[in-house]
Amino acid sequence: MSAPRFRELATFMRTPYVQDLSELDIALIGVPFDGAVTNRPGARHGPREVRNMSTMMRSIHHVTKVNPYNLCRIGDAGDVPLTQIYDLEAVNREITAFYREVAANNVTPVSVGGDHSITYPILQALAEKAPLGLIHIDAHTDTWDEWLGSKLTHGAPFRRAAEDGLIDPARTIQIGIRGAQNSDEGWKFSQESGMRVIFIEEFHELRLEKTIQEIKRVTGDGPAYLSFDIDSLDPVYAPGTGTPEAGGLTTVEAQQLIRGARHLNLVGADVVEVSPPYDPSGGTALVAATMVYEILCVLAEVVSKRSH
Amino acid sequence: MSAPRFRELATFMRTPYVQDLSELDIALIGVPFDGAVTNRPGARHGPREVRNMSTMMRSIHHVTKVNPYNLCRIGDAGDVPLTQIYDLEAVNREITAFYREVAANNVTPVSVGGDHSITYPILQALAEKAPLGLIHIDAHTDTWDEWLGSKLTHGAPFRRAAEDGLIDPARTIQIGIRGAQNSDEGWKFSQESGMRVIFIEEFHELRLEKTIQEIKRVTGDGPAYLSFDIDSLDPVYAPGTGTPEAGGLTTVEAQQLIRGARHLNLVGADVVEVSPPYDPSGGTALVAATMVYEILCVLAEVVSKRSH
Amino acid sequence: MSAPRFRELATFMRTPYVQDLSELDIALIGVPFDGAVTNRPGARHGPREVRNMSTMMRSIHHVTKVNPYNLCRIGDAGDVPLTQIYDLEAVNREITAFYREVAANNVTPVSVGGDHSITYPILQALAEKAPLGLIHIDAHTDTWDEWLGSKLTHGAPFRRAAEDGLIDPARTIQIGIRGAQNSDEGWKFSQESGMRVIFIEEFHELRLEKTIQEIKRVTGDGPAYLSFDIDSLDPVYAPGTGTPEAGGLTTVEAQQLIRGARHLNLVGADVVEVSPPYDPSGGTALVAATMVYEILCVLAEVVSKRSH
Amino acid sequence: MSAPRFRELATFMRTPYVQDLSELDIALIGVPFDGAVTNRPGARHGPREVRNMSTMMRSIHHVTKVNPYNLCRIGDAGDVPLTQIYDLEAVNREITAFYREVAANNVTPVSVGGDHSITYPILQALAEKAPLGLIHIDAHTDTWDEWLGSKLTHGAPFRRAAEDGLIDPARTIQIGIRGAQNSDEGWKFSQESGMRVIFIEEFHELRLEKTIQEIKRVTGDGPAYLSFDIDSLDPVYAPGTGTPEAGGLTTVEAQQLIRGARHLNLVGADVVEVSPPYDPSGGTALVAATMVYEILCVLAEVVSKRSH
Amino acid sequence: MSAPRFRELATFMRTPYVQDLSELDIALIGVPFDGAVTNRPGARHGPREVRNMSTMMRSIHHVTKVNPYNLCRIGDAGDVPLTQIYDLEAVNREITAFYREVAANNVTPVSVGGDHSITYPILQALAEKAPLGLIHIDAHTDTWDEWLGSKLTHGAPFRRAAEDGLIDPARTIQIGIRGAQNSDEGWKFSQESGMRVIFIEEFHELRLEKTIQEIKRVTGDGPAYLSFDIDSLDPVYAPGTGTPEAGGLTTVEAQQLIRGARHLNLVGADVVEVSPPYDPSGGTALVAATMVYEILCVLAEVVSKRSH
Amino acid sequence: MSAPRFRELATFMRTPYVQDLSELDIALIGVPFDGAVTNRPGARHGPREVRNMSTMMRSIHHVTKVNPYNLCRIGDAGDVPLTQIYDLEAVNREITAFYREVAANNVTPVSVGGDHSITYPILQALAEKAPLGLIHIDAHTDTWDEWLGSKLTHGAPFRRAAEDGLIDPARTIQIGIRGAQNSDEGWKFSQESGMRVIFIEEFHELRLEKTIQEIKRVTGDGPAYLSFDIDSLDPVYAPGTGTPEAGGLTTVEAQQLIRGARHLNLVGADVVEVSPPYDPSGGTALVAATMVYEILCVLAEVVSKRSH
Repeated sequence: MSAPRFRELATFMRTPYVQDLSELDIALIGVPFDGAVTNRPGARHGPREVRNMSTMMRSIHHVTKVNPYNLCRIGDAGDVPLTQIYDLEAVNREITAFYREVAANNVTPVSVGGDHSITYPILQALAEKAPLGLIHIDAHTDTWDEWLGSKLTHGAPFRRAAEDGLIDPARTIQIGIRGAQNSDEGWKFSQESGMRVIFIEEFHELRLEKTIQEIKRVTGDGPAYLSFDIDSLDPVYAPGTGTPEAGGLTTVEAQQLIRGARHLNLVGADVVEVSPPYDPSGGTALVAATMVYEILCVLAEVVSKRSH
Repeated sequence: MSAPRFRELATFMRTPYVQDLSELDIALIGVPFDGAVTNRPGARHGPREVRNMSTMMRSIHHVTKVNPYNLCRIGDAGDVPLTQIYDLEAVNREITAFYREVAANNVTPVSVGGDHSITYPILQALAEKAPLGLIHIDAHTDTWDEWLGSKLTHGAPFRRAAEDGLIDPARTIQIGIRGAQNSDEGWKFSQESGMRVIFIEEFHELRLEKTIQEIKRVTGDGPAYLSFDIDSLDPVYAPGTGTPEAGGLTTVEAQQLIRGARHLNLVGADVVEVSPPYDPSGGTALVAATMVYEILCVLAEVVSKRSH
Repeated sequence: MSAPRFRELATFMRTPYVQDLSELDIALIGVPFDGAVTNRPGARHGPREVRNMSTMMRSIHHVTKVNPYNLCRIGDAGDVPLTQIYDLEAVNREITAFYREVAANNVTPVSVGGDHSITYPILQALAEKAPLGLIHIDAHTDTWDEWLGSKLTHGAPFRRAAEDGLIDPARTIQIGIRGAQNSDEGWKFSQESGMRVIFIEEFHELRLEKTIQEIKRVTGDGPAYLSFDIDSLDPVYAPGTGTPEAGGLTTVEAQQLIRGARHLNLVGADVVEVSPPYDPSGGTALVAATMVYEILCVLAEVVSKRSH
Repeated sequence: MSAPRFRELATFMRTPYVQDLSELDIALIGVPFDGAVTNRPGARHGPREVRNMSTMMRSIHHVTKVNPYNLCRIGDAGDVPLTQIYDLEAVNREITAFYREVAANNVTPVSVGGDHSITYPILQALAEKAPLGLIHIDAHTDTWDEWLGSKLTHGAPFRRAAEDGLIDPARTIQIGIRGAQNSDEGWKFSQESGMRVIFIEEFHELRLEKTIQEIKRVTGDGPAYLSFDIDSLDPVYAPGTGTPEAGGLTTVEAQQLIRGARHLNLVGADVVEVSPPYDPSGGTALVAATMVYEILCVLAEVVSKRSH
Repeated sequence: MSAPRFRELATFMRTPYVQDLSELDIALIGVPFDGAVTNRPGARHGPREVRNMSTMMRSIHHVTKVNPYNLCRIGDAGDVPLTQIYDLEAVNREITAFYREVAANNVTPVSVGGDHSITYPILQALAEKAPLGLIHIDAHTDTWDEWLGSKLTHGAPFRRAAEDGLIDPARTIQIGIRGAQNSDEGWKFSQESGMRVIFIEEFHELRLEKTIQEIKRVTGDGPAYLSFDIDSLDPVYAPGTGTPEAGGLTTVEAQQLIRGARHLNLVGADVVEVSPPYDPSGGTALVAATMVYEILCVLAEVVSKRSH
Repeated sequence: MSAPRFRELATFMRTPYVQDLSELDIALIGVPFDGAVTNRPGARHGPREVRNMSTMMRSIHHVTKVNPYNLCRIGDAGDVPLTQIYDLEAVNREITAFYREVAANNVTPVSVGGDHSITYPILQALAEKAPLGLIHIDAHTDTWDEWLGSKLTHGAPFRRAAEDGLIDPARTIQIGIRGAQNSDEGWKFSQESGMRVIFIEEFHELRLEKTIQEIKRVTGDGPAYLSFDIDSLDPVYAPGTGTPEAGGLTTVEAQQLIRGARHLNLVGADVVEVSPPYDPSGGTALVAATMVYEILCVLAEVVSKRSH
């Protein structure tokens, strides 16, 4: 990483491109799929553009002084191969198969989407033994049911995951929720199933410290997954996304929330919904890369401890 | 509104296009005019682009759970026809004539500009009986007198309105004021005529709750008009405007200020100064649409009560 | 159309929005679907953005002096309603059903896509009685077979149409073909089935006049359909598309080709593959609107004669 | 000009900023006005942005080896001061007054607009003694009469100039005309008044050499003015303009046309309709600067001869 | 400044272009150099683009009511001439020589970069007699040592200045520091040499008032220099820079920090790292111009007092 | 290459990333350096962005039906490592050293710049035995001598190469030359040293076929190098470059010129001066990738023959 940042091919964070999963503790994985969006597509190009902008990232965290690359073997494991992109169920099956392989190698995945529909098949692989806790940072609860004939849209992954017992609603927290909806069924499902839903207004009241306490209280010590939808951020920080909602998180707040997950028992994470066609300046991909870096710092500490 | 948001022609908020005003309680109206700007033009294209981005909006408010379309008959009444766009006085007359028709039909208008000069002729139609209170959210007081030979520029509407008795300075509040000026006459006029001027620095001190109290204290129970200049927002939220001023409101703050006007006796509102040529990403128009939606939620409650 | 072009909602060409098909001779129809693309999506937003930029268009053609709006009743019939956008077969069925209604009303459709997969279901409705001739202007023959598990991608419509007898290969001409491919099966299918394929190099040799003679020779007097893929144009004229190929047609050449179809027995036409997320300046949509206008001028003469 | 081109303030072509007209043979003058446009504004910012991009220009012409700065005293004379920008007639008076001063100093002006309405008042100053010949390169004849109440729009300057005897229609040639119109009155006026109108289609038939012969034949030896509307170029070369029309000139063709005016008795020239808000890349302004340079090379030879 | 802001050539803040330094109290100076960047170049174009956007600025400060142009003679002194741009040491010598001339004329410089490497040679001229205090607002401490063979990169100026005794570490404060690094040597150097380093997290804890107290406490009454790196701002406010770091200052915070330096004994200031190629909207240059204006207001009071 | 093109990391043309040169016949190599530009930088980011857009490319040429990947072992060999980017002479040494290794492995390099200064050190490695012929497609002859103190700028490589006997002027052809210069020394050097210089005007007269004959006549049968400067293209095809010159080649012409080099004895090639910061749409990089593909098709035939 001491070479000029404008040099060489763009892998995630300029880590080595590694195709043998057994060589890794943490795998950075792209999931280039956006066939489940309800409005603006483009997130299929997210992994490549996040790779591109992630070349701006460096190694030592300025607050914790953690260098995740010293703690764990971290590499770019490429993209999930998809061979039937017009069939949502087939896509889900292929994603799950890939992450079963990841899990089988005892590798902790940090995934870059792709639309949010990818999280459901990832959880199908990671939560095979027991439901996971969930830290879900997003403008939307993504617990809607069916839309235009499909139950696998990017508005539904956590409803499906809850129904399947992949996540434990009682250990699920959703933060940053906002924006009008044509139906309140998603909000209702989250709240009625027992998830802790922190709308953006409550977040502004609680402020960071208390929200982080809530994260810890809700998810507890059990294994948990972190899903970061880039549209949790205000559109000025992340214009390049399919469903922007005014009035969101700042990057400072998002960074602090992720740092708030330090020492939690995370078993995987993702950053989704970066849509490069709506991100001509690359700023959204750069912010996404920053969040991946913050996640890596948190995760590397946990993974390195777990393996000892 | 259950159809995909990328479908069909773009009306304001995907409401029906209605040309018979008697069918409406609240009319969304475009005023495509920017001939009164002092620097960067382009706001003539504002109505069309706000219509375009407003297709991203949905119906149920995530805080109040109000669905304005259930409370009132809301439609897109098209644009004010202008037949002499090179003559500011003629433009003003045509705008006033159109809004007299709106008022005659007992319709509450929510207008999308267009530069801020349009508010003066709107007020000429709406304030025929008595001066209105005014909630004015803007970077500029727009109470300058004459510039380059005209008294009808977009820097003058509230001076003209005050002089004509269309607004009551004692019931007028201006929020978000900032940015250097070459003359202090506007600031002076506002303050000396009795308007409550909250510069951005005072806003940051008062913070939201107390500012909202001031809004309520100043405007009181009488009929009032809400004028939202998109340049009240910081340029990162609204680059697409003619006179951006660094250091402005966030969208969160603006949304809260509008929600703070809930239950006030509003008789009309506008969102102005969206200049699409300076908004290549459409983000400004999206934010403007969001503010229109927040206004509709506040207004629909008042209008539906008023008509019962 | 004598009003300022920046005024009012954006319908196609500023024609009236007409929902009763029986009021029209020619219907401008949007088909907002891009679920069949093989690489960059976004064409679902094509119809709205072409509507937007088509407001720049005017009425009297500068060469032929034809005013199509005087010859025929032309209106914007809105977008094809799609209720199952994640299922390509269902989408095809819904499109066909809509165009059967169009045909039943004896209305000639000019469609705006949407990706090129939409032409197959349109042809299913229009070619029910007999195979049509086809004038196909494109960088790609779109006669590939299957890709990633689907036979309904935007690379396949004319293979399917030929197989189903909806188009007559002997009366089909494809112009502007170019760009490397990973398999030559599409080129082969076109040539072996008897289509007249004019690669861009041959077009540069033949030049306009002789190419137009070829168009007339191939399609003859029978009913024919015109399908214009915006990627036939060089990417500098049409960057906003999913599969740009360097070295394409100029707009001058494309306009002349369309004018070359004057007096042919056209029964419908489309302009497809405009992808607004890749068209920040709107230039591609403006060019598409120009092509729609050129098509309308050609079509209006034929339709008005046919109906007398 | 041997300093790095990215250095120092941007004057036209990096010439000295000269406020005493008597020091100049050729004055580069900005006319920052766009109040007469019929659709998209922004050309008021044209002079500044052309100055900016003109810093890329250099001195020795690669074909003629002319260095205009060696032949004549050329400088940037700043912008025409406008003090009543909302009143078209006043604007015209102020422009004329400024150019009378230019003419009185025996300075040949090369102006950068601003919209095309500025040419009429310029001609009022330059053609005081006798009608001028006119080489007019444009997509539009700009000989329409009245629009939305004004006879001074940017669609009318050459009708006004012809009516006032400022230009001689018999010595006027208009090249590049194209694009639909809602009324044919402009085309008719040009043709019926005796102007030589070369529509783009005829230009493509004549090709360059014969068109240049026509220019020379029509304008003859008498004093002539060259007016170059940037929308004569195809929109890919000049997207940054208010009324782009597909299917226009290439820059190569435009450069050759200007070079074709070599040795003609030119008394002034302008390049108009550059609208920076529609030119985010600056490419249009760069092309405009290139045309100004080509004009300077032609003009410097004539002016230097005239003064000897 | 009462002329329309879109008129005339762009000098800094529309001040007069003055080449005789003895006519000025405060000189606005461009330093168009970016040859010392470690990643993305482009800041060589900063001065011109800040000039361009600074034409939006006006004169009377809305908080302090200071009009700096009434207090001091302020002008645009052009750009530092650079004749050997490929040789970092030669560039440094030429910059120092220019500022020695500035200092010899008793002129206070406000410089616009250029990359941050320019501050070291400026300080070589201004701190000839004694070390200066330093208020340094930046995402990076710029106290790294050597990179890719050079000790004069834009990551090193304050290390060099401290080593040379041009700044007094004990009177140096660095605010806004954040972002990962590949080596911690810069952070360490700053802290170990005695500089007061306020990372962004501490800034968020201290908040504005206490940070401003720290500024005053650290710099004291002695002469001090203010260096403002635009990347201190969050990338949404300043995307147009070479090394953006998510999670930075808002413009409101930056304005307040500069206002916090009111009445300090400032002897010069700069705003650096504006990279126009990464700033297509011009928003970063506009923010930079705003910061220059805030600096001018603070400086004009001090300079006008000092000269009495 | 049958996978979706939006998938996986971006290598040049989606070829394998190969670090052992002995595994390759043709190596695609990035040279990320722009420290020798005379005006607008950014080409250091060229290799990465060309890699990115080259993922749109496919394998079988539509004219020749050549699939270069079947003829030769082609791979992405990464970027030339540069460890002293502020020292032009050191950069040159490191580039030469890298290409000596390439040559030693009997690998034919196709390089992607970077600014044009990189071609001189490449030639130093490839022409060690005898001077090469040169096909040089560019707007500039790049035979200027010294600028701002350096003889190694991007305006000088072919002067240096001729002086050093790396290229044979009598076997050198330069095509597409145009644009004003401040000194004619470059043009003179080329012509007086015996190079065949085809200015764009002569190219338009000769047209393609005769120009290709000239290429063949001049370079003959000896070993030759092909250097393609993206600014040979008109700026509409390649806005993303440092020194655009209006009136250049079309992509069709450039493709044909490269195809015209078929069967010549090429020993290497490069495509240079792609500057991504000036290429927000990526169109320039896409065109560059297309030219790399055309070069690969020509080269693969020659290389495969040579090795048999």
